[in-house]
Amino acid sequence: MTTQQIVLAARPKGLPVSNDFRMMQAEVPTIKAGEILLKGMYYSVDPYMRGRMNDAKSYVAPFEIDKPLNGGAIAKVLESKSELYKPGDVVMGHFPWQREFIATEKETKKIDADLAPPSYYLGVLGMPGLTAYFGLMHIGKPKVGETVVVSGAAGAVGIVVGQIAKIQGCHVVGIAGSDEKTKLMTTEFGFDEAINYKTTPDMNKAIAAACPKGVNVYFDNVGGEISDAVIKNIAFHARIPLCGQIALYNSTEPPMGPRLQPMLLTRSALMQGFIINDFKDLFPEGIQQLAQWVKAGKLKTTETIEHGFENLPKALLGLFKGDNIGKMIVAA
Amino acid sequence: MTTQQIVLAARPKGLPVSNDFRMMQAEVPTIKAGEILLKGMYYSVDPYMRGRMNDAKSYVAPFEIDKPLNGGAIAKVLESKSELYKPGDVVMGHFPWQREFIATEKETKKIDADLAPPSYYLGVLGMPGLTAYFGLMHIGKPKVGETVVVSGAAGAVGIVVGQIAKIQGCHVVGIAGSDEKTKLMTTEFGFDEAINYKTTPDMNKAIAAACPKGVNVYFDNVGGEISDAVIKNIAFHARIPLCGQIALYNSTEPPMGPRLQPMLLTRSALMQGFIINDFKDLFPEGIQQLAQWVKAGKLKTTETIEHGFENLPKALLGLFKGDNIGKMIVAA
Repeated sequence: MTTQQIVLAARPKGLPVSNDFRMMQAEVPTIKAGEILLKGMYYSVDPYMRGRMNDAKSYVAPFEIDKPLNGGAIAKVLESKSELYKPGDVVMGHFPWQREFIATEKETKKIDADLAPPSYYLGVLGMPGLTAYFGLMHIGKPKVGETVVVSGAAGAVGIVVGQIAKIQGCHVVGIAGSDEKTKLMTTEFGFDEAINYKTTPDMNKAIAAACPKGVNVYFDNVGGEISDAVIKNIAFHARIPLCGQIALYNSTEPPMGPRLQPMLLTRSALMQGFIINDFKDLFPEGIQQLAQWVKAGKLKTTETIEHGFENLPKALLGLFKGDNIGKMIVAA
Repeated sequence: MTTQQIVLAARPKGLPVSNDFRMMQAEVPTIKAGEILLKGMYYSVDPYMRGRMNDAKSYVAPFEIDKPLNGGAIAKVLESKSELYKPGDVVMGHFPWQREFIATEKETKKIDADLAPPSYYLGVLGMPGLTAYFGLMHIGKPKVGETVVVSGAAGAVGIVVGQIAKIQGCHVVGIAGSDEKTKLMTTEFGFDEAINYKTTPDMNKAIAAACPKGVNVYFDNVGGEISDAVIKNIAFHARIPLCGQIALYNSTEPPMGPRLQPMLLTRSALMQGFIINDFKDLFPEGIQQLAQWVKAGKLKTTETIEHGFENLPKALLGLFKGDNIGKMIVAA
């Protein structure tokens, strides 16, 4: 069977462009015992993928030139030579950017479509939801009455962080890049305050005003100058889970900024980088808790869906322009 | 009774100078019930005192203009109206920079002169020793076979950090600012390697060579470019206890440097500022452990003693020039 895949054509310098990707023909062989033939339904695009486009040591292997990119996806079973799956089943896994592809039993996990729509398993019930949950609860450790600030707050992770912080009884301030996003955060997602960094002339002042008792937890998705302003306002014993640095992913030179150590030292504050696999052993706990909140209506979600497999590169590039509200997904 | 005290004459801009201090006459009234008249024997000078010379929010209150500075000291009891102390007893506490002074029972603690010389209670058995112990053991959490790098390694805290890390079975690399210091570290204090940052042209390379498996724990006493070089070499899941930033204490502008967050993020690393009072409840455990190592000959110490009460400002300024090996103390 012949199908299509999207490969990495070139390693981008700075912001990726559409020429860094190429659509190619690919052959899908006949499946063997224990294998499943899948058709992609929803593909996840995530900020961390930018790092994988570089040929650099990081927490996940780089994408390879002329090989398909890959990431979280939801797929439907077309054919199965596994006793665990039958045609029509909906599964999730880490799959290639290819319209049809083969996976083994081990690489595949059936999802509970009764609990939530399939695409939720790429967002609030998937990697972004778990990232928000573990980063906030295990590193941020928010306490009732504390102030939690989250940057990239309208993104797939941020929108979950803010809502969990509200569930924990915190004063929650979100930072995002459009009035549409900030409005949604306060009206739909229960944030106490939301700041549009693109229209705020003095972020330092704005954070200070929104956080009169200082920032106890800063969940950082973006880095750069937004983070500088938040960190100027941290409280004693503040915790800063470092989840993403989207402002810096496309830097071609080592970015410079104000040194953080004096602030962290004088405030006895903690900053910790993490990746979701640091918490692998606790995934079942996390998924169960997130699902329970979703079911109870305490945790809402929002998605930006781009239609068409061929639009995967466009959707990924859109992340860096802030095109998405909530989880960015491509529906095949 | 008339005595002398050293007061803060002016808040320094940048590096303090001797004119920022002034010697003054002071009256010591007659002691009342529960009070003790003390004569200072040894006064501690510490890098953190630089921060207290500014009028800025930090973890300890600023010194006041025209009031005596204060800090850790060892003193002898001259007169006592407390049943807990008798003339001749040797005590420790947080005392003013004054030749003779009054303290209450609560502010004073008798020391065990059989265990170690009195001045040790300002160093390896005092605040610097506890800072090394808790910062390394509770934040750094070194494991057997890991690599520990300590900057300011010949200072009061650093020299203890390196030795504790050796006791924990680690590969220990110290950074200091003279060949005399680095030699002492490897010959007397058991460090595996020592780097003189003043004569090393490429610190990044030197750290990489000394730490072929990467840096698992970086105990940071200095900040600035030395720390930049170490942080470039951290291993996955590295821990960075932030103890001091002596390179930056005298900065008049917010210092700039390479942004840390991308490294902390891609290495899932932790950086944590702390002050010794964060571990107040655990002091007895720490003192007992340090004393046991000292008794067993596993933890050695070294002091730089400046003679003469009037030389307290000179000794403090000397810290920022790297004059000291081990704990810097003024003997009255």
